[in-house]
Amino acid sequence: MKLATLKNGRRDGKLVIVSKDLAHAVDATDIAPTLLDAIERWTDTEPKLRERAHRLAEGACTDAFAFDAAFAMSPLPRCYQWLDGSTFANHGHLMERAFDLGITNEYERHPLVYQGASDDFIGPRDDVRLPSEADNMDFEGEVAVVVDEVPMGTPQDAAADHVKLLMLVNDVSLRALAGREMKTGFGWIQAKPSTAFSPVAVTPDELGAAWSDGRVHLPLEVKRNDEWFGHPHGSEMTFNFFRLIEHTAYSRTLRAGTILGSGTMSNAARSAGSACIAERRAIETLDQGAATTPFMRFGERVRIDMFDADRRSVFGAIEQRYVQSSKRVDA
Amino acid sequence: MKLATLKNGRRDGKLVIVSKDLAHAVDATDIAPTLLDAIERWTDTEPKLRERAHRLAEGACTDAFAFDAAFAMSPLPRCYQWLDGSTFANHGHLMERAFDLGITNEYERHPLVYQGASDDFIGPRDDVRLPSEADNMDFEGEVAVVVDEVPMGTPQDAAADHVKLLMLVNDVSLRALAGREMKTGFGWIQAKPSTAFSPVAVTPDELGAAWSDGRVHLPLEVKRNDEWFGHPHGSEMTFNFFRLIEHTAYSRTLRAGTILGSGTMSNAARSAGSACIAERRAIETLDQGAATTPFMRFGERVRIDMFDADRRSVFGAIEQRYVQSSKRVDA
Repeated sequence: MKLATLKNGRRDGKLVIVSKDLAHAVDATDIAPTLLDAIERWTDTEPKLRERAHRLAEGACTDAFAFDAAFAMSPLPRCYQWLDGSTFANHGHLMERAFDLGITNEYERHPLVYQGASDDFIGPRDDVRLPSEADNMDFEGEVAVVVDEVPMGTPQDAAADHVKLLMLVNDVSLRALAGREMKTGFGWIQAKPSTAFSPVAVTPDELGAAWSDGRVHLPLEVKRNDEWFGHPHGSEMTFNFFRLIEHTAYSRTLRAGTILGSGTMSNAARSAGSACIAERRAIETLDQGAATTPFMRFGERVRIDMFDADRRSVFGAIEQRYVQSSKRVDA
Repeated sequence: MKLATLKNGRRDGKLVIVSKDLAHAVDATDIAPTLLDAIERWTDTEPKLRERAHRLAEGACTDAFAFDAAFAMSPLPRCYQWLDGSTFANHGHLMERAFDLGITNEYERHPLVYQGASDDFIGPRDDVRLPSEADNMDFEGEVAVVVDEVPMGTPQDAAADHVKLLMLVNDVSLRALAGREMKTGFGWIQAKPSTAFSPVAVTPDELGAAWSDGRVHLPLEVKRNDEWFGHPHGSEMTFNFFRLIEHTAYSRTLRAGTILGSGTMSNAARSAGSACIAERRAIETLDQGAATTPFMRFGERVRIDMFDADRRSVFGAIEQRYVQSSKRVDA
């Protein structure tokens, strides 16, 4: 089942069910007005949503309409918690080797996770509004899961059933600010502006065998201005989503609608390219002594998509232009 | 005006208006069902809430009832963003001198802020449920503000009007985990369990002259098991709330209902004591060569309160017992 949230002038948008080929949609607001509400009452809402999804697939929904990702918000336009990991150890090792920040990571023992802002996600086709090119604007291509309520102390072997939906992510990052914020130990605020998610969120069964062992076993296709940038495969995720859930629920309950991200996808093979500019620059620094790929300029675009074995887009593409925010701090 | 949220079995509780002396309350759900809703429509809801608060003060509300903080949730039982600063530089300097973490802070140039979990705040009289004493359980006494929507790029001199409410905070912390998480540069996840706020949130005018220059000029009274622990004064806040708003809104819009915290309050004078155990242990380490004050044990209590010039509690007291969570990770 594929779900999306359409713009309707309200902060949480309105819930629709989308066909597998992403061509059609049908209203679902009578079942749950918003996706957040649906996740909070998933036991009640899931069977009703699935029944309508089945009818949509059969062509039995007379009120179906064309699905246009340009009118989609992020599936959860906002939620109460966004936890983003850095679970591809290859990425961390590259960054560490290229740019020594004096940071101590224990990639093999504990998942790395930061708490992100969840009050203001941006739509998959909306512009990324940022204050300044001098902040070294970047993207990060990731996969993410949405969970129902996860009680404090849930172990990884009890985590699978809590994963209700999957999405793609553009974890927008400002690299010129990231180092200073990391060095404080407090994590990122200015360096992590609003995040964007794919046009649709899908239930795990939509991925078939590609969802196994708490990982998405498909490559993520990342393009910059229509040019290939990378296609890292999800199978190299060091800590899987179940371990990430266990880690983050150690001393807190994760309330329904919490999103957990994989962190930028990254493979050991150089031929896979990268899902963010910073990593390509790290590789250039290691291989050639200096980074040559520039960060994003205003007007540039990123495209993040994932295809199944039959080359069908699973989530719809995130496709965004980076533009200058109209308001700026004078300081 | 003082506002509170009473438990009603729902995640966001129900909105009530509380009298200045915290003795009485009156339902406000016909104006706004929840405080989050009220903040999102503040221009519309504020005058209506104030009118009813005025009637409550005059004894004209026939449906008023006794206010009991034991039935209160945090004023915002959850919200979409919780940003907690560390704006009392004295605290940071003490921690740095006592426990060198190899962390580079620039206290004088940039406010320190971490993104906290906002999906599951705990009530001001609810138990703090945690997995293990071995995690070195602590409290942190703070003040916080609630803002309406703050556009990206808002400068500090335009921040004052966005501050709609103030509260007290118990920023529950697990010190044994904090160091490892800081060293990653990603900030805290396991070391920052659910946070608690005071029984009522108050509009800035309730503080009179004590709210000026973006600071709360009153001492915070912190007790551990009914014994004095500290009374640090808010006037020594290094970066005020307006600067904190400017800093956090640099590259993102803060949506209505965002909470910003001061970080643990801390004064240069040793006679002020401390608002958290870790700071007292830092002072003991510096003065006596070793920390002697133990962290919280299960069954112990903390009390955080703030009084006006006439010794009237402004926000009601946070008063919580630390207890063991029933579920634990087996690992």
